[in-house]
Amino acid sequence: MNWIVYLVPASAVVALLFAGLLARRVMGYSEGSDRMKQIALSIRRGANAYLKRQYRSVGLFFGVIFLVLLALAVASQVTGGGFMSLFTPFAFLTGGFFSGLSGFLGMKIATAANARTANAAQEGLNRGLRVAFSSGAVMGFVVVGLGLLDISLWYLLLTLVFRLDSAATTQTMLTFGMGASCMALFARVGGGIFTKAADVGADLVGKVEAGIPEDDPRNPAVIADNVGDNVGDVAGMGADLYESYVGSIISTAALAVSAFHANAAEQLLGMILPMVIAAIGVLASLVGTFFVKTKESATQRSLLISLRKGVYISSVLIVVASFLLIYFGMGAERLGIFFAILSGLIAGILIGFFTEYYTSDTYKPTRKLADSTETGAATVIIGGFSLGMRSTAIPVIVVSISVLCSFFLAGGGADFNQGLFGIGLSAVGMLSTLGITLATDAYGPVADNAGGIAEMAGMDAQVRQRTDALDSLGNTTAATGKGFAIGSAALTALALIAAYVDKIGMDNMDLRITNPTVLIGLFVGGMLTFLFSAMTMSAVGRAAQSIVMEVRRQFREIKGLMEGKAEADYAACVDLCTRSSLREMRMPALLGVIAPVVVGLILGPNGVAGMLAGATVTGFLIAIMMANSGGAWDNAKKYIEAGNHGGKGSDCHKAAVVGDTVGDPFKDTSGPSINILIKLLSMVSIVFASLIATYHIF
Amino acid sequence: MNWIVYLVPASAVVALLFAGLLARRVMGYSEGSDRMKQIALSIRRGANAYLKRQYRSVGLFFGVIFLVLLALAVASQVTGGGFMSLFTPFAFLTGGFFSGLSGFLGMKIATAANARTANAAQEGLNRGLRVAFSSGAVMGFVVVGLGLLDISLWYLLLTLVFRLDSAATTQTMLTFGMGASCMALFARVGGGIFTKAADVGADLVGKVEAGIPEDDPRNPAVIADNVGDNVGDVAGMGADLYESYVGSIISTAALAVSAFHANAAEQLLGMILPMVIAAIGVLASLVGTFFVKTKESATQRSLLISLRKGVYISSVLIVVASFLLIYFGMGAERLGIFFAILSGLIAGILIGFFTEYYTSDTYKPTRKLADSTETGAATVIIGGFSLGMRSTAIPVIVVSISVLCSFFLAGGGADFNQGLFGIGLSAVGMLSTLGITLATDAYGPVADNAGGIAEMAGMDAQVRQRTDALDSLGNTTAATGKGFAIGSAALTALALIAAYVDKIGMDNMDLRITNPTVLIGLFVGGMLTFLFSAMTMSAVGRAAQSIVMEVRRQFREIKGLMEGKAEADYAACVDLCTRSSLREMRMPALLGVIAPVVVGLILGPNGVAGMLAGATVTGFLIAIMMANSGGAWDNAKKYIEAGNHGGKGSDCHKAAVVGDTVGDPFKDTSGPSINILIKLLSMVSIVFASLIATYHIF
Repeated sequence: MNWIVYLVPASAVVALLFAGLLARRVMGYSEGSDRMKQIALSIRRGANAYLKRQYRSVGLFFGVIFLVLLALAVASQVTGGGFMSLFTPFAFLTGGFFSGLSGFLGMKIATAANARTANAAQEGLNRGLRVAFSSGAVMGFVVVGLGLLDISLWYLLLTLVFRLDSAATTQTMLTFGMGASCMALFARVGGGIFTKAADVGADLVGKVEAGIPEDDPRNPAVIADNVGDNVGDVAGMGADLYESYVGSIISTAALAVSAFHANAAEQLLGMILPMVIAAIGVLASLVGTFFVKTKESATQRSLLISLRKGVYISSVLIVVASFLLIYFGMGAERLGIFFAILSGLIAGILIGFFTEYYTSDTYKPTRKLADSTETGAATVIIGGFSLGMRSTAIPVIVVSISVLCSFFLAGGGADFNQGLFGIGLSAVGMLSTLGITLATDAYGPVADNAGGIAEMAGMDAQVRQRTDALDSLGNTTAATGKGFAIGSAALTALALIAAYVDKIGMDNMDLRITNPTVLIGLFVGGMLTFLFSAMTMSAVGRAAQSIVMEVRRQFREIKGLMEGKAEADYAACVDLCTRSSLREMRMPALLGVIAPVVVGLILGPNGVAGMLAGATVTGFLIAIMMANSGGAWDNAKKYIEAGNHGGKGSDCHKAAVVGDTVGDPFKDTSGPSINILIKLLSMVSIVFASLIATYHIF
Repeated sequence: MNWIVYLVPASAVVALLFAGLLARRVMGYSEGSDRMKQIALSIRRGANAYLKRQYRSVGLFFGVIFLVLLALAVASQVTGGGFMSLFTPFAFLTGGFFSGLSGFLGMKIATAANARTANAAQEGLNRGLRVAFSSGAVMGFVVVGLGLLDISLWYLLLTLVFRLDSAATTQTMLTFGMGASCMALFARVGGGIFTKAADVGADLVGKVEAGIPEDDPRNPAVIADNVGDNVGDVAGMGADLYESYVGSIISTAALAVSAFHANAAEQLLGMILPMVIAAIGVLASLVGTFFVKTKESATQRSLLISLRKGVYISSVLIVVASFLLIYFGMGAERLGIFFAILSGLIAGILIGFFTEYYTSDTYKPTRKLADSTETGAATVIIGGFSLGMRSTAIPVIVVSISVLCSFFLAGGGADFNQGLFGIGLSAVGMLSTLGITLATDAYGPVADNAGGIAEMAGMDAQVRQRTDALDSLGNTTAATGKGFAIGSAALTALALIAAYVDKIGMDNMDLRITNPTVLIGLFVGGMLTFLFSAMTMSAVGRAAQSIVMEVRRQFREIKGLMEGKAEADYAACVDLCTRSSLREMRMPALLGVIAPVVVGLILGPNGVAGMLAGATVTGFLIAIMMANSGGAWDNAKKYIEAGNHGGKGSDCHKAAVVGDTVGDPFKDTSGPSINILIKLLSMVSIVFASLIATYHIF
């Protein structure tokens, strides 16, 4: 049943067509008044300008790495060292290209949909939701469509045209994962710094010093803030999840090669299985989107239920289809593989739920955090921090159970490699619903922007209320989405570590944790995530500082700005954010690319394995902590703004604002970037594995 | 040259005699005026009352664990299971007893020396230093003396009386390490919660709400605050370092058994070597203390140099003596072992230096943190947090190099077990200067208390200035001491992990990090440190909350308190702190004891090894981050109070106070407790190793 592999390009095409269709529908809505069009245009221009310059910087980086890889590949051919294939540099480029394209297209539709959502919200909450959700779905299906397209193109090219064997095929495909990771890291870090620098800068001067409300058009940083939502939360997230998606699929395919080396037919089936599961997921997600509809009288709660219904229906479809596929395609004795997929799917949903539990103000943890504002800013910080640390317990247990189940159910007890394949499949299972999960997630920033436009264009208060309701719903789905992104990153990273070990060959390694190079690797890996977080956090601080200066300058120098008689120089703030975030993203991103090579050349392949495990474990914990502390601080502030503990302007509110500001870089810059870091480290290690195995000190 | 083992009890006795002599000298000073005596008495009473109740709660816990161990040991004899020796329960008790005694005696002398230091400071800075330093030295030599005494008693008892072989001797001795760890965890966590709850509670109401200065006698929590310094920073630290000290020595002795199994004579030498190195260290420290003297005209800088001189001279003596010992005792071909010891010593000094670099306001990081107060509390928190995370890089690199050097120089390349023995020796080397390091460290809280007494007794402003100078010097040495405690904890934990693996037998284990139980163990271990930090932090928050209520009540209900006409009910605050800290210490401490057993019964011995490695790596990072963030916040505040950025009362100062308050539980409760947690986890795992190896699910 090898014909089934053609399902992969087919569903890629279906996903892209569907995304195109939805995009056309979104574009059919009106952008509203001239003022709205003008604001939307400013945001669009700012976002485009940022992305153009980002791609230019990143392009340079890709050029350099391409040349390095090319030189190594040529050297490898000439010397017969065999440590790098000639396909590697090209695969690397396509991965970067498609990852960037995912982010770019997602941002295109998001910046087109924001004013349209605000305009549609004039007619009702549901109409607004429809526009926003459709644009989110465009993003979701672009990501999975491009991911599967890239995978199938390379797979068909390598197997049909170049007739490579299974091992060579999957090893080459892993390389484009490295390209995708690099692009994703730049997009997440750069975008994350942009969005938080603009946000913090706008708030510190606007809300705190000048005393004007959020999204007030008099604030010179207000457009930059809206641009930030698009380049960070949309383009960054698109590149990020594209990378998790293809990473989990190709690493699992690579693991299948060793897992089923005894039987060529089964090996082929195992190798295409992750791709086919992903393809099934795309079709199931597509069906799921049709169930996202609401009555005109819908409340926020019923809206959420409607969104969730889409996700759950897709999940059920995937479960049924993959059961049938494995039962009839591979036989009843391989059903363990099905349970590996199932465990990943369930783990994803559970982690999402507990992320919501810890960060939503409908539950106790965030309520208690809001209580702690009564004794001032310091107790809010301690409380939020402790909440974030505590919230790591359940996700760790969920991931642990999922790893154990998928390893042993996939046959790891008898054959170690089959167990590792099972762990990879659990990541694929978790990410199989990505099309629709991302749709419910990516509409948040669009709603957020729509609110900003409504405010700036002076629209009816009711419109702002509706966009706020959409935005708040978006925060809930974003929390779930964040948990999902972290969980899938951890499982994908584990699959990648296994793929790395597999590439070097377990028998050539001493992976015992008592081996000092492994042990030191663990320490260094953990330390890298701390260092990386520190770098991204101070980057936000520095960039925000420069925005504060610029906003203060404009308030001082532009006469009549505060009175609303003169217009602020929005473009200057956007430009400043662009420049500083591009400058600040370099060091953290370079750390991710260079560290594995340096560690490898010193500590050797065992040390690198230790480093990957250390980074994955510590990174997973920090990412959850940061996401949940940040989310809880944000929602505790919103809870107080809703009139609790004295409401807006009270001392409690001021204390909560401190928490929220600390949480901003936590949840939107450092936290999400770590997800990518841990995968990038593994990807780079895989690509340079043979080189490191040949040359190292210890 | 086996006679050299008698050097160990001999230097234990010398250390204790020296401590007694110093104590007598301290007691010879006058406590000053009646008012001073009365305040000192209140502090002493509060501290005694706390310790009495703490020992009662902990005694109950020890009783239960004793019975559990006894039952297991009896069952082991009856069934022939061999998973626990009959000595185990008793060894466990003595470890706990001596660890508690170290803390108790340290606290006794500290509460006796505080008023005496204040009184002596009337006559000059140096006289004050002499009293305070002598009391610190009492503590230092009590800790090392009791440590070596316990070790030598058991060693002689087991080898001479019961004639156990080397393996059985060291395995039994490891058990008293578990007793010491348990006691230390209770002391650190309970004392840490007490001191910070009182501190935060006193500050929040006193300084912030009532607007009265620190240590003002009108503040009802002021005595509790001073009691806290003694039960937390003195008794807690004493128990902590006692535990690191004996832990590193006995685990290294245990490692020697496998490392030199081929040659019985060498095995014996290897086994007694760590004890002898420690004994040499005690004598060298004793000599070092005589070099701590200053001229009457000494500045703060020259005081620091004088303290350092003592440490450096001791270090040089240890280096020379251990070189001679190994060269002549074991032969030139074993000189690698000497370098292992040396690498530990150097690592300890380097980590101490970099801790100071990151937390002292004479260097750039803390200065920049103080700058960030200009943009408010949120940027101070982000800045301090990022500083703490960044500051993990160098200690990780230093520890890594030390591990690599000690492993390979001790012969790990040829014989794995000898390398592990080398890692253990580096921990012993680092801790060999403990006598004097602890002396320079433990005098800080005494100086702090002396300042409090000077303030409360209304002494001359000049006295307060001098005690402040001593206190500030104490902060610097405390920072170094903290780095030292963390570094030694990490190396000791690594030695303990090796001892654990050794006990189960490497050949019976699959310690590869790709083994899913090891991998999950890593995740769970990392998560435990996060969970534990969260628990201790919220414990401080809750306990502080109750102090705030009580202080507010007293201000409200005691007429004339604010006017200084009525006296506050100090005892009520002390009692409240006692009760809440004892209540709050239970859960975190239980987590440390129960987790390894639960993880072991589920994941088996490989999972436990993973858990230990995960906890050590993540715990090391968090402990450094918390210590350095907290220290930098504290000193940034002091830097502002010294007149920078607007000085006391400015907006910058307010922002810095938020940072300092967040930093309090970081640096004095959660951070130091993690050091103990990682060792306790290993100790418990060792004691239950055979049980876990027999019964487990995966």
